[in-house]
This record gives sequence, C-alpha cells and structure tokens, in this order.
Amino acid sequence: MIIIHHLNNSRSQRILWLLEELGADYEIKFYQRNEINRAPPELKQAHPLGKSPIIEDGNFKIAESGAAVDYLIRTYGGGKFMPAIGTDSYERYNEWMHYAEGSAMVPLLMKLFTSLLGEGGEPIQPIIDAEIDLHLGYMESQLGDNLFFVGDDLTGADIMLTFIVEAAESRIGLKNYPKLEAYAARMHDRPAYQRGLEKGGPYELIRTRKD
Amino acid sequence: MIIIHHLNNSRSQRILWLLEELGADYEIKFYQRNEINRAPPELKQAHPLGKSPIIEDGNFKIAESGAAVDYLIRTYGGGKFMPAIGTDSYERYNEWMHYAEGSAMVPLLMKLFTSLLGEGGEPIQPIIDAEIDLHLGYMESQLGDNLFFVGDDLTGADIMLTFIVEAAESRIGLKNYPKLEAYAARMHDRPAYQRGLEKGGPYELIRTRKD
Repeated sequence: MIIIHHLNNSRSQRILWLLEELGADYEIKFYQRNEINRAPPELKQAHPLGKSPIIEDGNFKIAESGAAVDYLIRTYGGGKFMPAIGTDSYERYNEWMHYAEGSAMVPLLMKLFTSLLGEGGEPIQPIIDAEIDLHLGYMESQLGDNLFFVGDDLTGADIMLTFIVEAAESRIGLKNYPKLEAYAARMHDRPAYQRGLEKGGPYELIRTRKD
Repeated sequence: MIIIHHLNNSRSQRILWLLEELGADYEIKFYQRNEINRAPPELKQAHPLGKSPIIEDGNFKIAESGAAVDYLIRTYGGGKFMPAIGTDSYERYNEWMHYAEGSAMVPLLMKLFTSLLGEGGEPIQPIIDAEIDLHLGYMESQLGDNLFFVGDDLTGADIMLTFIVEAAESRIGLKNYPKLEAYAARMHDRPAYQRGLEKGGPYELIRTRKD
C-alpha cells in the first residue's frame, strides 16, 4: 500500500491528483501547516527533511516531487502518463519533470520569501518578477495550442507543471498568460483532479473560475 | 557531435566534467557573465531561457541540468554512471538527481540573491541559513562513510550534488560538514574533473585545498 504524507496547501496535492489518475490504492497521512505557515515537526518523523510530499511504498521512501511522480508513473502507470524511454518525447518529458522544481518554481519561492521582508525586499523584486515572467512566457510559448505539455495525453509533466501554474496564479495572476490560464482550468476539470482535491482537503492554491 | 553552451562559473561546469567522464566527443561554445554577473543575452539565441547549461545533440536540445546529465548518461554511458532502471538504487539515483536543483540548491540561491539586499535582507537570513543547514546535514548523513552518493562508483547523482557542495562551500563554508568537504576533495581529484576544469576555463566555485 502506498502511503502519502500530505501537508495541506503544498506540492503533495499533485501526488493525490496523480494517485487518482493512476487509480492506485493509497493511504493519506495528514499534516497541517502551523501558525507561521510552516510544516509541523511531525513530518520530520516521516523523513529527516520534514517536507511534503513524502511517499512510502513497501520499504521505499521518496521525498522529492519530481522523483515521486516519475516513480509512481513507472511503477503503477502501466505505460500511461509518460512517453517510452528512449524516444525524443521522453527526453522532453524528463526535462519538464526537472524544470518544474529545478527552474520554474525557484523565482516563485523567492517572491514568497522576500515578500516577508516588506520594503527591505523591494530592491530585488524587479529581478524576481523578470525571472517569473521569463519562465511563464516560456511555458506559455511551449504549450502553445496543445492540450498537454508532452504529446496528446496527460503525462507527469502536466502533474508537475500544473502546480507551478497554480503557484503563479496565486502570487501574480495569469492575465498575461491566457494559454496557461486555460490549461490550468482544463486540468482542474479532470475528474481525478477533483477527487484528489476532495481527498486532500482545503487547497488554497487554486481559484475556481467562479471567483 | 554534442554541443555544450558553457557559461563561466555556472552549473555547466558539471556537464564538462560529465562529458570528460564519459569520454564523449563534444564542442564547447563559451559565454562570459557580464559585469553584473548575469548570463549574456547571446545565450538567448541558443535557447529562449538564456541559461546555462544548454546541450545540443543532433536536433535535440536540453536546458535543464538534471535532465541533461541523465540524458548524457543514458545515451553515452554504456550502462555506467547510473543504476539499472527498475532497481531500488535507480530510485535513489533519480531522487538525488531531482533533489539537487529542486531542493538543495534553492536556499543557496536565496542566500545569493538576498545578500544583494544588505540590511534589508537580514530578517530572513536565519530562515535561509536553517534551510541550508537542513540540506547539508541531510546530505552529510546520507553520504556517511560512502565514497559516492549511490552505490560504489560515480553516478550522475555525484555530478549533480558536487556542484551543490561547491556552491555551499563558496557561500557558507563546510567546516560543519567534514564528510561533504572530503567528498568534494575526492571529486576534485578525479582526472576527468580536472580535465573539465581545464576545458571550461576559470571556475571560482571551488577552492583548492592549498587555499
């Protein structure tokens, strides 16, 4: 049985979505952010980094989103949700899998952290905002008129990148990126996404289109 | 022929090291940081993100370190430098590959950027320093007395993580992490690492032990 250590309003929501897409059996262990929005110390009992998501499967434990998504797809996807290894599409998939947290998420995290500084953080906001624009513009142009980031069906790349788009929407809005905005709405309409939301509890990183 | 778009003092040094370990034929296109330490605009002609490393191989282009390292190893490694897909060791390898830039590098980048703020950035330095300590302590404990991060030989995980250790050494020092310090020294002693350094030109993220 797969166990997912799930922190509210975190990257682990993407794992719940994926597990629902996979139709996998899993158990959720719930953790709540504390009053200063940090993960609670109990997560350190699950893994020394004390971050979420953490997945366990048998004796195996993974605490890094990209690796966890890739592992679950290879193990439980039955060939779906990723291109075959050795194809050009696979390399593109793998690049997006690394790009999501390794590049695109970084300036969004900087925005979040430096916002804690108030006026003291203002001098670097233009640099951070330019970086965010660079990445959103790149994703927008690469997505183009496609329904998914790789090929004609959902892959792990979409699971990874949807969270980035959600984080961008909650922090700076997506009015300059209509393709990404429509993409996020399509992902949110998926029944498995909705089931993941119900399982995970309140999630403040998406706006419903009724807002 | 593999082409590597190489920016001085950047993550692309790790690609030169890997290419030397692989014994691959490759061509370097050199780019120099400008007077404010940013990548020059010419890199945007190679890839819209304008960052380094960028590798090209035939019609294929990858602009994300973890994906580039993994691609080169799968394509030119002849089975070396990574565990077989499907093994527990492979999952560990894949997790480190994602962890390096997706987690460990993030607070080091925050340290670099918020240092530009001077006094204005001081309130969040304790949070950033605690994050850096968390990750270095984790890497130190996971490495333990092993010579490499996965198995008994060099893998892509070492290529990825050595750069993190170098960045940590240049920004905060490694006196609290003797295993990581010794590990970096071992990696730096490798003939392929040295050849990569010679090919790439001056690299300020490592200190020789004579310093």
